[in-house]
Amino acid sequence: MMHILEEDAVLSTGGKPWQPYLEAALGFRNHWYPACYSHELAEGQARGEQLLGERLLLKRIDGRVYAVQDRCLHRGVAFSVRPECHSKNTISCWYHGFTYDLRDGSLVAVITDPESSLVGKLRLQTYPAQEDKGLVFVFIGDMDPPELKLDLQPGFLDADLAIHANGERQLVHSNWRLAAENGFDAAHIYIHRNSPLILEQRRPLPLATIPASREGMVVAEDGQPKGVVKGRGARKPVWEVEIEGVKVTSRFLPGPDTPRTSPDTSMWLPCGLKVDPFPTEGIMQFEWYVPVDEHSHTYFVTWGRRTTSDAEAAEFSREIEDHWKDLVVDKFNVDDVTAREAMERFYSEEDGWQRERLYRPDLIITEWRKLASAHNRGIQRLSAPQSAGGV
Amino acid sequence: MMHILEEDAVLSTGGKPWQPYLEAALGFRNHWYPACYSHELAEGQARGEQLLGERLLLKRIDGRVYAVQDRCLHRGVAFSVRPECHSKNTISCWYHGFTYDLRDGSLVAVITDPESSLVGKLRLQTYPAQEDKGLVFVFIGDMDPPELKLDLQPGFLDADLAIHANGERQLVHSNWRLAAENGFDAAHIYIHRNSPLILEQRRPLPLATIPASREGMVVAEDGQPKGVVKGRGARKPVWEVEIEGVKVTSRFLPGPDTPRTSPDTSMWLPCGLKVDPFPTEGIMQFEWYVPVDEHSHTYFVTWGRRTTSDAEAAEFSREIEDHWKDLVVDKFNVDDVTAREAMERFYSEEDGWQRERLYRPDLIITEWRKLASAHNRGIQRLSAPQSAGGV
Amino acid sequence: MMHILEEDAVLSTGGKPWQPYLEAALGFRNHWYPACYSHELAEGQARGEQLLGERLLLKRIDGRVYAVQDRCLHRGVAFSVRPECHSKNTISCWYHGFTYDLRDGSLVAVITDPESSLVGKLRLQTYPAQEDKGLVFVFIGDMDPPELKLDLQPGFLDADLAIHANGERQLVHSNWRLAAENGFDAAHIYIHRNSPLILEQRRPLPLATIPASREGMVVAEDGQPKGVVKGRGARKPVWEVEIEGVKVTSRFLPGPDTPRTSPDTSMWLPCGLKVDPFPTEGIMQFEWYVPVDEHSHTYFVTWGRRTTSDAEAAEFSREIEDHWKDLVVDKFNVDDVTAREAMERFYSEEDGWQRERLYRPDLIITEWRKLASAHNRGIQRLSAPQSAGGV
Repeated sequence: MMHILEEDAVLSTGGKPWQPYLEAALGFRNHWYPACYSHELAEGQARGEQLLGERLLLKRIDGRVYAVQDRCLHRGVAFSVRPECHSKNTISCWYHGFTYDLRDGSLVAVITDPESSLVGKLRLQTYPAQEDKGLVFVFIGDMDPPELKLDLQPGFLDADLAIHANGERQLVHSNWRLAAENGFDAAHIYIHRNSPLILEQRRPLPLATIPASREGMVVAEDGQPKGVVKGRGARKPVWEVEIEGVKVTSRFLPGPDTPRTSPDTSMWLPCGLKVDPFPTEGIMQFEWYVPVDEHSHTYFVTWGRRTTSDAEAAEFSREIEDHWKDLVVDKFNVDDVTAREAMERFYSEEDGWQRERLYRPDLIITEWRKLASAHNRGIQRLSAPQSAGGV
Repeated sequence: MMHILEEDAVLSTGGKPWQPYLEAALGFRNHWYPACYSHELAEGQARGEQLLGERLLLKRIDGRVYAVQDRCLHRGVAFSVRPECHSKNTISCWYHGFTYDLRDGSLVAVITDPESSLVGKLRLQTYPAQEDKGLVFVFIGDMDPPELKLDLQPGFLDADLAIHANGERQLVHSNWRLAAENGFDAAHIYIHRNSPLILEQRRPLPLATIPASREGMVVAEDGQPKGVVKGRGARKPVWEVEIEGVKVTSRFLPGPDTPRTSPDTSMWLPCGLKVDPFPTEGIMQFEWYVPVDEHSHTYFVTWGRRTTSDAEAAEFSREIEDHWKDLVVDKFNVDDVTAREAMERFYSEEDGWQRERLYRPDLIITEWRKLASAHNRGIQRLSAPQSAGGV
Repeated sequence: MMHILEEDAVLSTGGKPWQPYLEAALGFRNHWYPACYSHELAEGQARGEQLLGERLLLKRIDGRVYAVQDRCLHRGVAFSVRPECHSKNTISCWYHGFTYDLRDGSLVAVITDPESSLVGKLRLQTYPAQEDKGLVFVFIGDMDPPELKLDLQPGFLDADLAIHANGERQLVHSNWRLAAENGFDAAHIYIHRNSPLILEQRRPLPLATIPASREGMVVAEDGQPKGVVKGRGARKPVWEVEIEGVKVTSRFLPGPDTPRTSPDTSMWLPCGLKVDPFPTEGIMQFEWYVPVDEHSHTYFVTWGRRTTSDAEAAEFSREIEDHWKDLVVDKFNVDDVTAREAMERFYSEEDGWQRERLYRPDLIITEWRKLASAHNRGIQRLSAPQSAGGV
């Protein structure tokens, strides 16, 4: 029988070795985050998004996406209330016509005062933006951004990985950390045991899988994405338990042909999840829990498959749309959303971060908290400078 | 002419001899409260209720009701979001399968980690629960609970009193104290003068009745329920008043056959009202204003009649359902609900507890405040321990 | 070419010479404000309104309007929840019958305790009220009120000015100061350039007009209304601007017959706007932005025309109702409402009053802030005495 890891620290109520994580209610600064899907931003179009408490305006110019603060320096209205673009590279505030170049944020014209001395002297905060695999990523922070791939789940940018990123997003009413810990939770699969995805596949889903080896669990090498990996095989499945003489059993028990491995689930800085394979062999699911404010996050879901041709990629997209999306998003992840929102009151109003009582399977969660505390590039604060002053 | 009591303290704006009452925005701790109706909890069923700011889970096991904290010790979700009972005596958290015995709150199994060392070492807070007359009562507090009858309106548990407790409850958006003072208010019957209950009965309802004797008003003997009694006969009715030469008169004046007594209304710790008789001779009305949070309470209404057989009791229930319920709840008490909610802004936002200007009929209210201040068993605070730690 | 005013102070981020204005989130105390339209208050009728955070009850008695605090001294409920008038000069609280004379606020009867010693000893706060031109004005403050006309836009009370005041009001979710600054803003006409009012009239509306002379801008003589005037002719219009080689041009350019003057827009203490002429020659528009609480205001709109007979006045009213109201309120001012609400987050949550970056056309706004800071009669505070105590 496999040995299961114990960690006294997990069970104690003493000092928390993840203090920075506790302070990151608005997320980690100086990281890349998905802001929207590529198809949500047509050429020349502008749209607003809120990430980490900051308001951003995105615009696509000659195919490339630029991002600036979605708040006019003059009187603070959001450009996105009525996006107004008179020329290719600019956004004009619909209120007084303050017009900024998206490429560097500089004030290039004031429609209502063409000779304004402010022109050329004010600058909107800009955000590095990069697009790949059907997602638009922005960098929220002050430092020179590192490579995008350092803030992504490993493999996501692989050339042979077709990504189906087709608009699956929702606003979920919980802090982003509760979402990250739910997605990555070793034992939460219990809530999915009656999901139609499981029932229709007659899939032998254990009640839980418990980490049985720390080998390879923490990934924190220089120049690589930083994350925590559940460990594909190194987990002990739970198939049955007895309560007062009543047996609680997985709906479908494993047979001789059932693969003995579970999906390899891993959580990556700043807030990305990878589940491989899921929902079926050959498909990976990628999720993000992007902080919107202290009490909500945007939940993005995409899927990937290794393909060798555009035709294969198109076939993969059809398969997701026609078969998996409904089963996964509407009938499986909906349980996760319920769980995240059900934790919010405890953690936001009832001192949950101090009063929670973790247990053995939460070892990977505490490893995540420690990794995130050690390797984040900064804590986002509401008082963080949100606008660059005059030049 | 009857003498009417004056009390200078009532009219002064000086010191308030009911400071503990002012601190009891969440109610009084260490008392029994109704949590739900018996018929709302079938055998084996579990449901959540919030009382005094605490979340409770109730479950009926072999006929008996047990109550525990409705918040898993692990990550704080409410069991009642998806009540899950695998065995008779337990509740399992739907999220990770932490399974507790309702009888003592102990963690008896963890479905997702059967060998968890936490089993047997953690314990949910339990709440003493008792059921009588169609209501489920729970004790919110830390001490050994006293007899239930000490926290009930006198006579409520009498063997010959048939109680019709059939689900009348609503969430009212005012602090519970405003509800108690409204229900017990000597002069508030003024708001009911055009109620269909009064009009259809052609009942001679005075504009108000003013306490005229303190005799027997305060009931605070050891080993008895503690409360304040308006005094059945010892009140002076007001039938008419003149304003700028305009007479304001009760809709129906008393005739020679009109009984000279008003219902005997009384208010009992922690938050129960008794009106005898009401809505008609031979029927008593019992109400409770159970704090939910600082700004809302659950309003329970039941009725009682002395009967000598089950058939009489059944006939009484039919009479309430067919005739009185609509007249009383929907067309009479609705005025009280309006009044309670109309006071909330003044008392919660505008320093009403200090700025109110009470008058003579409020003597019974100030007696209630003083009694409640002197005889409560504790003030409920949000920082009160809501969970028992590890054993 | 006209010289355009520069003002360094406007552009600097240094000290703000309008500190009192920054503190007036609830408006200025000791001023007259419109509370409702005359036709909204029939003879004998009572209604509640909230101004500057205070609750008022208005009642019309023998044609004259009286105003008192809309909160019973006894237990703080609003009379207006169920206005109850048993006699001509009184309001009775619907809860316990505390009855006050509207004319001096005195407690003249208590229906539920006719011999109460409080009668004659308590007094509701009263508010001076005055009615003219179809509006009911109240004075919120503690001092002897000055003449109404000192707190009105000049000319509003002129005998030959017919005012059409027919119920145009709405609750707008922004602080009142953002509304005042929007209404008076020299450059905000940019947001109206595609309004049906402009398109249907084929009116040559500049993109903006920039103040070009301070002469007569600030009006602050003793014994006169205090305000700031944009200056009818002394402004430079902007008809075209170029952005990245793209011309942004007014929809209709002026021809030889176009009058070279813009409407004379002016803003008056405490919160009234005058636009003359608007929406067409011979008509003036009068607006008010009356603080309700820190985050909302009531927006009143009326129109005036000089007439020589009742028939002319009636014809004017028909013209407003049949032609202008829809064009102005629903299709023009709606843009202003959008702008006010779009500023609210920045100013209320993101330190906008310190972080805004004003520009040349805002000179009239900063002049308004300075004038309002220097000439207001007091800052409204939530802790201001809202009720007169016992006599």
